[in-house]
Amino acid sequence: MTVRAAVAGASGYAGGELLRLLLAHPEVEIGALTGSSSAGERLGTLQPHLTPLAEREVRPTTADVLQGHDVVFLALPHGRSAAVAQQLGDTTLVIDCGADFRLADAADWETFYGSPHAGTWPYGLPELPGARAALAGTRRAAVPGCYPTAVLLALFPAYAAGLAEPDAVVVAASGTSGAGKAPRADLLGSEVMGSVRAYGVGGGHRHTPEMRQHLSAVAGRPVTVSFTPTLAPMPRGILATCSAAARPGVGAADVRAAYEKALADEPFVRLLPEGQWPGTAAVRGANCAHIQVALDPAAGRIIAISAIDNLTKGTAGGAVQSMNAALGLPEELGLSTIGVAP
Amino acid sequence: MTVRAAVAGASGYAGGELLRLLLAHPEVEIGALTGSSSAGERLGTLQPHLTPLAEREVRPTTADVLQGHDVVFLALPHGRSAAVAQQLGDTTLVIDCGADFRLADAADWETFYGSPHAGTWPYGLPELPGARAALAGTRRAAVPGCYPTAVLLALFPAYAAGLAEPDAVVVAASGTSGAGKAPRADLLGSEVMGSVRAYGVGGGHRHTPEMRQHLSAVAGRPVTVSFTPTLAPMPRGILATCSAAARPGVGAADVRAAYEKALADEPFVRLLPEGQWPGTAAVRGANCAHIQVALDPAAGRIIAISAIDNLTKGTAGGAVQSMNAALGLPEELGLSTIGVAP
Amino acid sequence: MTVRAAVAGASGYAGGELLRLLLAHPEVEIGALTGSSSAGERLGTLQPHLTPLAEREVRPTTADVLQGHDVVFLALPHGRSAAVAQQLGDTTLVIDCGADFRLADAADWETFYGSPHAGTWPYGLPELPGARAALAGTRRAAVPGCYPTAVLLALFPAYAAGLAEPDAVVVAASGTSGAGKAPRADLLGSEVMGSVRAYGVGGGHRHTPEMRQHLSAVAGRPVTVSFTPTLAPMPRGILATCSAAARPGVGAADVRAAYEKALADEPFVRLLPEGQWPGTAAVRGANCAHIQVALDPAAGRIIAISAIDNLTKGTAGGAVQSMNAALGLPEELGLSTIGVAP
Amino acid sequence: MTVRAAVAGASGYAGGELLRLLLAHPEVEIGALTGSSSAGERLGTLQPHLTPLAEREVRPTTADVLQGHDVVFLALPHGRSAAVAQQLGDTTLVIDCGADFRLADAADWETFYGSPHAGTWPYGLPELPGARAALAGTRRAAVPGCYPTAVLLALFPAYAAGLAEPDAVVVAASGTSGAGKAPRADLLGSEVMGSVRAYGVGGGHRHTPEMRQHLSAVAGRPVTVSFTPTLAPMPRGILATCSAAARPGVGAADVRAAYEKALADEPFVRLLPEGQWPGTAAVRGANCAHIQVALDPAAGRIIAISAIDNLTKGTAGGAVQSMNAALGLPEELGLSTIGVAP
Repeated sequence: MTVRAAVAGASGYAGGELLRLLLAHPEVEIGALTGSSSAGERLGTLQPHLTPLAEREVRPTTADVLQGHDVVFLALPHGRSAAVAQQLGDTTLVIDCGADFRLADAADWETFYGSPHAGTWPYGLPELPGARAALAGTRRAAVPGCYPTAVLLALFPAYAAGLAEPDAVVVAASGTSGAGKAPRADLLGSEVMGSVRAYGVGGGHRHTPEMRQHLSAVAGRPVTVSFTPTLAPMPRGILATCSAAARPGVGAADVRAAYEKALADEPFVRLLPEGQWPGTAAVRGANCAHIQVALDPAAGRIIAISAIDNLTKGTAGGAVQSMNAALGLPEELGLSTIGVAP
Repeated sequence: MTVRAAVAGASGYAGGELLRLLLAHPEVEIGALTGSSSAGERLGTLQPHLTPLAEREVRPTTADVLQGHDVVFLALPHGRSAAVAQQLGDTTLVIDCGADFRLADAADWETFYGSPHAGTWPYGLPELPGARAALAGTRRAAVPGCYPTAVLLALFPAYAAGLAEPDAVVVAASGTSGAGKAPRADLLGSEVMGSVRAYGVGGGHRHTPEMRQHLSAVAGRPVTVSFTPTLAPMPRGILATCSAAARPGVGAADVRAAYEKALADEPFVRLLPEGQWPGTAAVRGANCAHIQVALDPAAGRIIAISAIDNLTKGTAGGAVQSMNAALGLPEELGLSTIGVAP
Repeated sequence: MTVRAAVAGASGYAGGELLRLLLAHPEVEIGALTGSSSAGERLGTLQPHLTPLAEREVRPTTADVLQGHDVVFLALPHGRSAAVAQQLGDTTLVIDCGADFRLADAADWETFYGSPHAGTWPYGLPELPGARAALAGTRRAAVPGCYPTAVLLALFPAYAAGLAEPDAVVVAASGTSGAGKAPRADLLGSEVMGSVRAYGVGGGHRHTPEMRQHLSAVAGRPVTVSFTPTLAPMPRGILATCSAAARPGVGAADVRAAYEKALADEPFVRLLPEGQWPGTAAVRGANCAHIQVALDPAAGRIIAISAIDNLTKGTAGGAVQSMNAALGLPEELGLSTIGVAP
Repeated sequence: MTVRAAVAGASGYAGGELLRLLLAHPEVEIGALTGSSSAGERLGTLQPHLTPLAEREVRPTTADVLQGHDVVFLALPHGRSAAVAQQLGDTTLVIDCGADFRLADAADWETFYGSPHAGTWPYGLPELPGARAALAGTRRAAVPGCYPTAVLLALFPAYAAGLAEPDAVVVAASGTSGAGKAPRADLLGSEVMGSVRAYGVGGGHRHTPEMRQHLSAVAGRPVTVSFTPTLAPMPRGILATCSAAARPGVGAADVRAAYEKALADEPFVRLLPEGQWPGTAAVRGANCAHIQVALDPAAGRIIAISAIDNLTKGTAGGAVQSMNAALGLPEELGLSTIGVAP
């Protein structure tokens, strides 16, 4: 089976990573590449690392251009996906890397995004309980946010096993590509190199309700998430440090066993051997999460740490994995767990 | 008054930063510079940035060499300070940048450092309630660890005002100079650039009991600290993201007011205007902490964030500030709050 | 003598560095800070590292605001300085950090900048033969470009001593602050971290005629300069690798002797001991150039390498040094040769 | 055809990159992984990014362990390859990533490496005139040094077409992985981040005679190379800025035409469109060189710039490409020209 795939938003970071991965996928043929302000340019100027596509032209993001593909990946600014998806028809698999169809709660959507709720699509994190089944055969999938990918993979085993109190605290460091490619003075290399800084503190980051929704579903009761994102001086990667109070009587062996059980068969998650801690370099460019967990006996908390590449497992790799799941292809097809290090 | 100062451990990062600051101090004359394996070398080879001291020779760290100075700064590996200090006599001001005299609890010391407890000296964080008075006139001072400096400045106002529950959760990102200058494969530039990684997870980091001790003292009851350090790809800087559950009835205005009150008169701490978040670049090379605080209403937590330079306010600047306090000099003398950015 | 100084362009990188240095200058009182789009904002938002000036307001760049100061530093986009300077009167010392008054040759100016030539002011590189004398008492000074500062300090001793053929080849790596603070997609942290890239290749960089002009003057005959700038993943610093064929019969000892003689009395240039090579970290934030030179016997070329901080010795430090020279203050006043490393 | 490949030196950077590429090669099965001090450890501890090989054990580098493979890649310290190769027999393809068999001139070898010359093997840079033919069917190949790879690809078209004078000047910036994984204080992250520094200046770098040998062979007459390497704050990548005086009468169109002709059919070299300049990020992890060339009319020099990944095209990718060439496999098999950016 050869799948013809289009990428809308081909000039951005998510679009570029999608193309990098799709070029390596044995069943995918790359169709239209579209953009808005970049329409008409050669891809070689915009994404010089995609050497084999250097001569391809970016076309405008219209239904005309996107129609006729088996899969359309949307890597568009928030709020644009619904209109495009509607025009594509039910036989096309549409995979949205944006936020538009991630949240189940319309009130959450309106509070955090300030626009009407577009709906909810199957959630492209197959590792989450129930998610894989929901993706099978779907023609619409919503790729998780990069932070939620890292946080849910780190914490769902604790909540699924009933080991943690419903008060998660998350601090995550992200590389700068998570903030996109549009020019901004505070994202200049001069500003970010040599600096770690906080932003979106106090519960205001848009990925917070997404984490809350899925952790609550796994836990079977409301879980609060205190989430603080920070910006780190690297282009790619998220390291999420997640913790929650351990429920009474929970011991270190219980925690380890729960994580081993939950993650044992996941091809794209590796629970590291005890004593080895995740770092983002090891998963750079890989569709892979490295996870470690510990119980702090003095503070009574479970500490779970995950490292992912925000563009790969956190966006484009998750999208391709979702495509494989939706189309009934082997989930690992065309995806690598090997990082580019050092 | 001219103060003659020696620096033991002049070839390391803490020693180099001490010399950088002492060169700018109007009342200090730099005396002996000592080292162990570097003894006999010119400082210009070891610390090429200290241009005015390039021709100075590093001498061995012995009592003979260190005697006869008004102040001796010790930037030695843990466990070496007590022996040196004993030989220096009571009229010399000894400022220890190591951990040896920071902890009050001997059991904590033995658990975390594995050697007999050497004692406790006045704590070189003048901003902490009671600390400034204890430093006045002392001839022995223990400079705080770099992480505790960042964390205590961020959290003490909340505990001093009784606003926070005693369950602090801290995730901090540090630059690599905090790990020292001894060659280690995992600290090579190739390993750290482009990567954030966790270490010392689960309560094992040696700075944990130091935070616990001082937060408990401020709070007047035992405070637990869940502390996770991470290593960020930058030479200098700590960003500490600290949180604790807000006590019932505490509102955002209470929190802001408590921080404004606690920090108003501190020359080396700046509470940023609301909406501006700390970053380490702004305090690079500065004896200054930038602080911000928020209340997350959904998660019910106070989030306090501090940025410091681990080598300056976190080590050498704190040491010079302690020297000023101990000698009765103006606390700000020779110290700058201006960062080197970008 | 207290000098009242204004900074036009206070929100940019050059302006920020000027303010950082002026805050440490014992004879300077900081007057008006001006900007264009930033007028009306607090400096603390724009330059959070300048803690002592956080509450100062940026005012518009007009003659009214700038008048009445002893010194006005202009850190403006090219082409704007002449109009401002004209309105300031002859008693005000005007120091231009822009290019407008650097080139003596009007044709060069027009070729490289595409506008009418504004004139030539004394050149703010006191180390260059004749430059110090020209600065004494001047009320107008043109600060050199950052690359020319690095290149001229590296090569003038060879040309002054008649050791080199007139065919200089220069490759320099610069930190990103040299490209300014205006948002540009190709200067995003995501783009520059982990990457060295070339630009302005083939003789087109605007600093080329400035190097050519001054090297020719020192050599007493036309010197060509093949100049290739590259962008390196660091906020600050220039490392210039400069070479020229050695004239017949020139030996390594001749080269060393010429550099020792030319640089011996310069407070802001350090010729490193043989075998030690310059790096930009050692001069970060310092008004200092580190220089080394070698003769490659097989290739028959003199290789001279300099490291500077593009914002300090390469811009703002050079400006303050020029101010000192112009006003008859000790040239070293308020300027430090100490780098902030690591 | 399935090729069973062993990697000697699997715990270093070259060995890790070899394994990363071999894992993606459709005709390769990975056999023994060997090391010296790392023998007995799991690869997952040493190379955490090679997730699929995490449980593999590193074995000692002995003939016993290496025998019985179709291909043995040697990523050993200089001087060790000859002894190992001798024991492996003539039917095994031995590909040496070290320097031992690169130089044809025994005197050059002895001057730069200080040991007896081991011999000369076919040179693993198929793009060089004559090299591809020499590799076909060989059972011994010497992979070029990383700097020579970058420099030869940039300059050979100019010399092959007779456009350049024999006085090449090269300044190259390399990422830190080129210096290896053995702990060294001057390669600590704290030292290299934020700094570009020179080393091996004056013709002393061991890659100099390798460049000279091959450029001379291409030019048909002795070419001198003035080579200055610099260390840049990035883990991977080389940007080589190479120039030589243009021969009389050579114009920009001649230069462009010569490069287009020389590089047109090379799958792993891309001559960028005019006006686009190489950067190392675009070839990160790719077996690909990006090249650009210009004629500087004022200085009369041809400037050729290449960007490669020192570990990929500069070492491990070149090794796999040589393996393909030697075994008669399609040269592009298992190798990608796609970079991991940003």
